[in-house]
Amino acid sequence: MIIDCHGHYTTEPKALREFRKQQVDAVADASRQPSKNSLRISDDEIRESIEGAQLRLQSERGTDITISAPRASGMGHHIGDAAMGLTWARVCNELIHRVTTLFPRNFVGVCQLPQVPGISPVNCLGELERCITEFGFVGCNLNPDPSGGHWNSPPLTDRWWYPLYEKLEELQAAAMIHVSASCNPNFHATGAHYLNADTTAFMQLLQSDLFRDFPKLRLIIPHGGGAVPFHWGRYRGLAMALNRPPLPELMGDNLYFDTCVYHMPGVELMAKVVPIDNILFASEMIGAVPGIDPETGHHFDDTRRYVDALAISAEDKYKIFEGNARRAFPRLADRLPNSRTVA
Amino acid sequence: MIIDCHGHYTTEPKALREFRKQQVDAVADASRQPSKNSLRISDDEIRESIEGAQLRLQSERGTDITISAPRASGMGHHIGDAAMGLTWARVCNELIHRVTTLFPRNFVGVCQLPQVPGISPVNCLGELERCITEFGFVGCNLNPDPSGGHWNSPPLTDRWWYPLYEKLEELQAAAMIHVSASCNPNFHATGAHYLNADTTAFMQLLQSDLFRDFPKLRLIIPHGGGAVPFHWGRYRGLAMALNRPPLPELMGDNLYFDTCVYHMPGVELMAKVVPIDNILFASEMIGAVPGIDPETGHHFDDTRRYVDALAISAEDKYKIFEGNARRAFPRLADRLPNSRTVA
Repeated sequence: MIIDCHGHYTTEPKALREFRKQQVDAVADASRQPSKNSLRISDDEIRESIEGAQLRLQSERGTDITISAPRASGMGHHIGDAAMGLTWARVCNELIHRVTTLFPRNFVGVCQLPQVPGISPVNCLGELERCITEFGFVGCNLNPDPSGGHWNSPPLTDRWWYPLYEKLEELQAAAMIHVSASCNPNFHATGAHYLNADTTAFMQLLQSDLFRDFPKLRLIIPHGGGAVPFHWGRYRGLAMALNRPPLPELMGDNLYFDTCVYHMPGVELMAKVVPIDNILFASEMIGAVPGIDPETGHHFDDTRRYVDALAISAEDKYKIFEGNARRAFPRLADRLPNSRTVA
Repeated sequence: MIIDCHGHYTTEPKALREFRKQQVDAVADASRQPSKNSLRISDDEIRESIEGAQLRLQSERGTDITISAPRASGMGHHIGDAAMGLTWARVCNELIHRVTTLFPRNFVGVCQLPQVPGISPVNCLGELERCITEFGFVGCNLNPDPSGGHWNSPPLTDRWWYPLYEKLEELQAAAMIHVSASCNPNFHATGAHYLNADTTAFMQLLQSDLFRDFPKLRLIIPHGGGAVPFHWGRYRGLAMALNRPPLPELMGDNLYFDTCVYHMPGVELMAKVVPIDNILFASEMIGAVPGIDPETGHHFDDTRRYVDALAISAEDKYKIFEGNARRAFPRLADRLPNSRTVA
């Protein structure tokens, strides 16, 4: 079984975008905010948006199931107030729930949190719990910078975030550290902000004892861990200089990188330096990096090809494609057939 | 000849740090600011600070000359006002000038700019010109985020910065894009802020036509280009999606990455994907990542070993060690013996 642990519903029906536009246009006037019930999307529209897109690509590329969240750049935590953000998160999460209900063999859900800059993440616990317990989701996306590029929240290792980690542990849910759109003109979203957030989060975790406080917490840093594998020697040296544990010990069962790295040399480097037990297969299709690589004739984000081509054992490939995802997302066990017992 | 294009004077005499401490302690009271002339450092103190450190390592590692700047984390552009920043830049640059005068065969200077958040970089032109024309420096460090982690200046490709680029072209001086310390608790300096700035700068340049406006501008992105080589496929795909030129064409003679990547797999990746013509040998010794790699028994920052071990031609090694640096820093020609004509 091949589990793609990082997908976003980027082919969402147009009505969802229109709903969001109404929200944003009325950001200054709560009385003009659209009601959640005003959004109408039929099952057929959802089927249509998935069948010719994610479902076709799963089939063409031979992957089985995608752990799918709302569009990352669409979360937009920096726009609007808490009420508007909660409505938006609920709308997006309910849509993912419908996708996973219509295609239960192809999608498992991960939710968007109603984060608001400056407001304690306690405000996210209700929606998180609803998505995990009522919708059967296996985790959430956690935005380390809800300001959208101004980085004025406390680091992820600050007690500010602890209520969220307590709830994640309690629910056995995982969190992917994933920023949203950037409203800072310095940072292109997919070309800088995403990768910077990944790098930043790793270094915060390296400096802290977060996983001592939360031994069952599971965090995923997407996009291959940002700059980290390329600078693995730097981080090994920094860990030594700061009297921190070696990186594999630091990552343990708690911290994972995904394979959203869109060329063979990058994926090769990753498999060479990062512990295999901490790598999760993922593609972030559709959309982060569209297009066909003229050097290979295949889509940049067809990451299965890179992992297939790695000179590693079948056991290690099993871990990357399936075994590690089952460890990172404990609740997957309830959603998936037991295709193989993990060794 | 082996040119290390990225060094900082991190073994500076204690008196310099004390001077800075006086400045910072008096940040709220201009009348208590120390005068530039109050700083006393003897030639012997400078010799001592260099001989047992950079000079010994140059000799042990077999490198010839280091392009050296003031301590990057010490620039601290976010602290104090323009007058204090100018004094600090002048003090630091004059000290580098003394180093290059005492050890003319071992060091070439690069200056610190008196940047101030929110103040036009026009205020830097005088000090830049002084360092290039009077001191024989070959370039400057340019901080893309003088706020120290709040990222509230315009992107590097904004016209805000153009007066600086005009002066750099006029002087045939290069700029290394290098942030200073971080005052944002989200960003560890060497573990996040530095690499994020590198990644951010590359994406800004990818999105813009800066080098069409400044065809003779030479910029260096240090630390191996941040996350970029690891995500080379992502950037190739983004360039296509944004209708930008292929990355080698974008970099041309204008943009270079250095080899401050502290493990063999990273340097190998870099040499595999980044055009060899755009890679400059560098180590950032002493200090960015101290210590000996237990996996190799050698210092993490002994980057010559990695380049030596690359499976590339002697011609390509020449380019990385010397030839490219002569292109990136045109003024080096006046400072160096003509060890070899570039092919």
